[in-house]
Amino acid sequence: MTVKVGINGYGTVGKRVADAVQAQDDMSVIGVAKRSPTYEAEMANEKDYPFYAASDKYLHRFEEKDITIEGMLEDLLDVADIIVDCTPKKAGYKSVYEKAGVKAIWQGGEKHELTGLSFNSMANYDEALGADYLRVVSCNTTGLLRTLYPLHMSVGIERCVAVMVRRGADPWDTKRGPINAITPVLDIPSHHGPDVQSVVPEINILTTAVKVPTTLMHLHSVTVDLKEDMPTEEVIDLWEKTSRVKLFEASQGIDSTAKVMEWAKDRGNHRGDLNEIAVWRDGTKVEDGTLYYYQAIHQESDIIPENVDAIRAMMELERDGNESIKATNKAMGIE
Amino acid sequence: MTVKVGINGYGTVGKRVADAVQAQDDMSVIGVAKRSPTYEAEMANEKDYPFYAASDKYLHRFEEKDITIEGMLEDLLDVADIIVDCTPKKAGYKSVYEKAGVKAIWQGGEKHELTGLSFNSMANYDEALGADYLRVVSCNTTGLLRTLYPLHMSVGIERCVAVMVRRGADPWDTKRGPINAITPVLDIPSHHGPDVQSVVPEINILTTAVKVPTTLMHLHSVTVDLKEDMPTEEVIDLWEKTSRVKLFEASQGIDSTAKVMEWAKDRGNHRGDLNEIAVWRDGTKVEDGTLYYYQAIHQESDIIPENVDAIRAMMELERDGNESIKATNKAMGIE
Amino acid sequence: MTVKVGINGYGTVGKRVADAVQAQDDMSVIGVAKRSPTYEAEMANEKDYPFYAASDKYLHRFEEKDITIEGMLEDLLDVADIIVDCTPKKAGYKSVYEKAGVKAIWQGGEKHELTGLSFNSMANYDEALGADYLRVVSCNTTGLLRTLYPLHMSVGIERCVAVMVRRGADPWDTKRGPINAITPVLDIPSHHGPDVQSVVPEINILTTAVKVPTTLMHLHSVTVDLKEDMPTEEVIDLWEKTSRVKLFEASQGIDSTAKVMEWAKDRGNHRGDLNEIAVWRDGTKVEDGTLYYYQAIHQESDIIPENVDAIRAMMELERDGNESIKATNKAMGIE
Amino acid sequence: MTVKVGINGYGTVGKRVADAVQAQDDMSVIGVAKRSPTYEAEMANEKDYPFYAASDKYLHRFEEKDITIEGMLEDLLDVADIIVDCTPKKAGYKSVYEKAGVKAIWQGGEKHELTGLSFNSMANYDEALGADYLRVVSCNTTGLLRTLYPLHMSVGIERCVAVMVRRGADPWDTKRGPINAITPVLDIPSHHGPDVQSVVPEINILTTAVKVPTTLMHLHSVTVDLKEDMPTEEVIDLWEKTSRVKLFEASQGIDSTAKVMEWAKDRGNHRGDLNEIAVWRDGTKVEDGTLYYYQAIHQESDIIPENVDAIRAMMELERDGNESIKATNKAMGIE
Repeated sequence: MTVKVGINGYGTVGKRVADAVQAQDDMSVIGVAKRSPTYEAEMANEKDYPFYAASDKYLHRFEEKDITIEGMLEDLLDVADIIVDCTPKKAGYKSVYEKAGVKAIWQGGEKHELTGLSFNSMANYDEALGADYLRVVSCNTTGLLRTLYPLHMSVGIERCVAVMVRRGADPWDTKRGPINAITPVLDIPSHHGPDVQSVVPEINILTTAVKVPTTLMHLHSVTVDLKEDMPTEEVIDLWEKTSRVKLFEASQGIDSTAKVMEWAKDRGNHRGDLNEIAVWRDGTKVEDGTLYYYQAIHQESDIIPENVDAIRAMMELERDGNESIKATNKAMGIE
Repeated sequence: MTVKVGINGYGTVGKRVADAVQAQDDMSVIGVAKRSPTYEAEMANEKDYPFYAASDKYLHRFEEKDITIEGMLEDLLDVADIIVDCTPKKAGYKSVYEKAGVKAIWQGGEKHELTGLSFNSMANYDEALGADYLRVVSCNTTGLLRTLYPLHMSVGIERCVAVMVRRGADPWDTKRGPINAITPVLDIPSHHGPDVQSVVPEINILTTAVKVPTTLMHLHSVTVDLKEDMPTEEVIDLWEKTSRVKLFEASQGIDSTAKVMEWAKDRGNHRGDLNEIAVWRDGTKVEDGTLYYYQAIHQESDIIPENVDAIRAMMELERDGNESIKATNKAMGIE
Repeated sequence: MTVKVGINGYGTVGKRVADAVQAQDDMSVIGVAKRSPTYEAEMANEKDYPFYAASDKYLHRFEEKDITIEGMLEDLLDVADIIVDCTPKKAGYKSVYEKAGVKAIWQGGEKHELTGLSFNSMANYDEALGADYLRVVSCNTTGLLRTLYPLHMSVGIERCVAVMVRRGADPWDTKRGPINAITPVLDIPSHHGPDVQSVVPEINILTTAVKVPTTLMHLHSVTVDLKEDMPTEEVIDLWEKTSRVKLFEASQGIDSTAKVMEWAKDRGNHRGDLNEIAVWRDGTKVEDGTLYYYQAIHQESDIIPENVDAIRAMMELERDGNESIKATNKAMGIE
Repeated sequence: MTVKVGINGYGTVGKRVADAVQAQDDMSVIGVAKRSPTYEAEMANEKDYPFYAASDKYLHRFEEKDITIEGMLEDLLDVADIIVDCTPKKAGYKSVYEKAGVKAIWQGGEKHELTGLSFNSMANYDEALGADYLRVVSCNTTGLLRTLYPLHMSVGIERCVAVMVRRGADPWDTKRGPINAITPVLDIPSHHGPDVQSVVPEINILTTAVKVPTTLMHLHSVTVDLKEDMPTEEVIDLWEKTSRVKLFEASQGIDSTAKVMEWAKDRGNHRGDLNEIAVWRDGTKVEDGTLYYYQAIHQESDIIPENVDAIRAMMELERDGNESIKATNKAMGIE
């Protein structure tokens, strides 16, 4: 069985989910939906993704731009087994999907309450088996779970404080600032801590966040009081064995988010993405039972493989989470 | 007695120290020294600060630019009671000052070992009384001491973790980046923790740091486990009463480092500086005995009043630190 | 007679106009109006500018913040001789001012058609004598007029092409980007050329513009085919004698917009502003009858003295434009 | 015959030239040389490019990092038919190549005088046939030639003024600024005009340049007085037919350098590069015989295909420039 995946919203996340789904053996893109006829719509046509108009508001402009339309969003819902919703947050399509009787996945911009089930491939694949609706947690939360969950499962986490230095806007987004300022997120704690707990309630974590003038990646400075002490090298080993965590070394010239992105481009990654979480080997240290480390999050792409795994779990294509992770990674070129 | 202060190095720090010294009743600028005839040298002339050449390498160029020279650095050392060294770090003038038999103050770019005495007005004024040499700690360390020392003296600090989001370069400095990256300082812990302890050894603090593409201010996200619990409002009250700490409110539109700087310009501060440490009232919170807060540091100017106090202590113009702080603040327009 | 000036809108431009008006001998601030109780409102209170609420929407919040209100905008219109409108563009207050029978000045965000009279102190002071309504042209247009008008009046301009490299947002404005991109203004020619001609129709000028990730100043690269050849030094001399044009030298270390702003802060300018247009002496060159030069525009402040002159002309406080310019400059500390 | 190409310098340009050469049918990478064992060296190993140490200074560190070395630079010169020099400018390898009797290509950082032959595929392929040494002109000069040469050959250029808004640093380069400033290049005219003329002396062009805080692309605002008038649409048509010029439309959402780069990533271009020059269709206009347009230059990659063509000409693999351009484009995926 090849699962037919529809994608509603074809921007930063939608276009990446489409390519990742199409790369798998057990699922394929049955169509993508978008409201307006930007160049992305044209590219969807070129990639032979059946294109559906998400609104009739701009129908005439699709015609002007010679973009072939397969139908309206409703038509896509008819033929899809499952929808990945990549629309801006609170777009409010839930009732539309319910009416059409189609399963759906949302992204981390939505609240946990929308689906009651927040997802991370490594932490709770099993809970997603057969589910109708779920939410893949945000890029930052996914990043925290990737490095914290293995610690939680081995020595245990007494308390974690993570300070998140967030990129101000995505690379393509020229409207948003700041150009020259640091903006603290004054709600303390920030929502990322509870968001981690929406997947693994047992992790005691508190987060703060600031926004800075860069577009490339988020960077976290994380402090973890471990339940049992663990030498630095063992922490590194643990992460070496963890899927979708990639260790870098400043001593080899990879000493900033910019260099991590350069590495990803050099490696030939599609779109120059980094689906893995970047952790600095020489920026990791355990001192007196407290672990300090930095990690960088490619905000546009780390959640993409989780979307693929979520589809596989919800459609029960694979009952073993580790097997799904392996399959997704292989198809996407993740080591 | 009016103490005659010489300033060696007339850049970002030197020009500010000069104006701050000149504003006091009990000291005045006997001369400033600089190597090259940039516009700052011209401005020193306009302000009637006697100008000395710190090197004979560029003497002809001073002439070309019509900059009046009073003499060489050595001549300044002859007439000064005390030198504030504002040269780039490791410029190595110590033996020159020793030979001339003049007292000297260095800035935070130098190591504690250079003088064996690291200074913060509030924390250890007494130790500086009559001293020949001392070091005013860096802008970041000064910022940490301003908010942590009062906590240390009231309820006590069990442990403090501070993540420092540092500006990449000063506003005028167009040579240094990054333009679009976050660079983690991989030495963990960063040197700022031990630097705080060079003034107050009892404070248990660990710091990490990242560099970001902004020029305006550093921003710290600080987590403090308090020895005794204390309600958020009492922490705020404590800082309200602390000199050189200024509370801001995002709810009044001051929600970023850029807005703090705008406020300082609007207030009419000289050069738009902020000598105080900016703390967000609505970004401060105590939860379960742990205090979380953000503070912003104007890297170019927070240490300036400490230099003035250091002069007063070393020259024994005033034996009471609080009185010196009051005098300095009044002359500099610090509330 | 002291003219009573009301200011509607108390943001970037309004707060500067208020201080500039207050510094003059023949006019004073009778009140400022603003919609919301941000810190600027508080500062207006501290400066003893009578404060008026521009809308009743946020009245309760003024009370909460303890900001004293003198009355509503309508009350201000009753007591003012003239209003300087510093509200966001197209705020549409014209009919309100007409109804109140008060003279009014708008800023360059509005179109020429709103008033039929576009103003620059040097170029058309006479036209503004006794006028009821006029528009001070934008910061960029003012900058172009300051350097082009003297050329137009001496040797004449055959054709001018100006490429304007615009700052993306003001320093305090953290919402707007771009963070890392150059955005060309694709309408060719940009509106700045016709805007120059709204003041001096005879100047043959064409402009293009790009937006870049900086907050400090706009920078123009200007190419002028002169009607008669003129040596570089004579162009420099002409600008030396021109009011509100200031020549800088890269050879003295002032080689970027950041250094120009540093100079303005060092000079002690209020808010670190530069009311003059900055032209690089060593970036100016005439070759084969074509003049090339760069100029930088402090977008927040170059138009402020023009507003003061406009008041003087409209209220007929002074019939000679040069005398008004001199008076304004002296009161504002412009050389 | 498969030409054996050696590459000296394996950074931004070198790694791209290697991949482009390897993609061709008639040439292959016989080896790459680099001084220090950064991650790029490791990647060269992974790509099976024989790796040579360009200096013995860091030999021990190559060993530490487990990077396999084939030999020293001299050994590479022995086996290579031609060297592409991608070292930093003025590295001074010319005499080394001469001694080894190997042909060599330099990049635009070097002066014309080094080789006496400056190269652009479209403009002077014939001159390069059989040459021993040449210089591929810089990214900006290449960009100007791509759009100006077709105009020069059709209606002719009376005069061209180009203002170049240059990126401050490459994306990976975190050391260089500016972070928040515009820096004018005060030498007027800038060197780019004469550089264009080093390839086509007949083009009357004058350039100025400013540096801005972005990493993605350079952007040019170009004004061309045409010898004969030509409607806007014909200019567009001319460029549509020109190789390595790509037209974009802001109306489809590609309205900044950031969006151009996003397009290149979406298209699946290797490293997200854009070898073509980006011209905005809706930013091009002819008015009264003067053409105005904007173009964006991907500084890291536009010169790569020119290097391949230069090899083909120098080694006389192909005598017809157009055929070489076609072959290069096809192998590199340039439309």
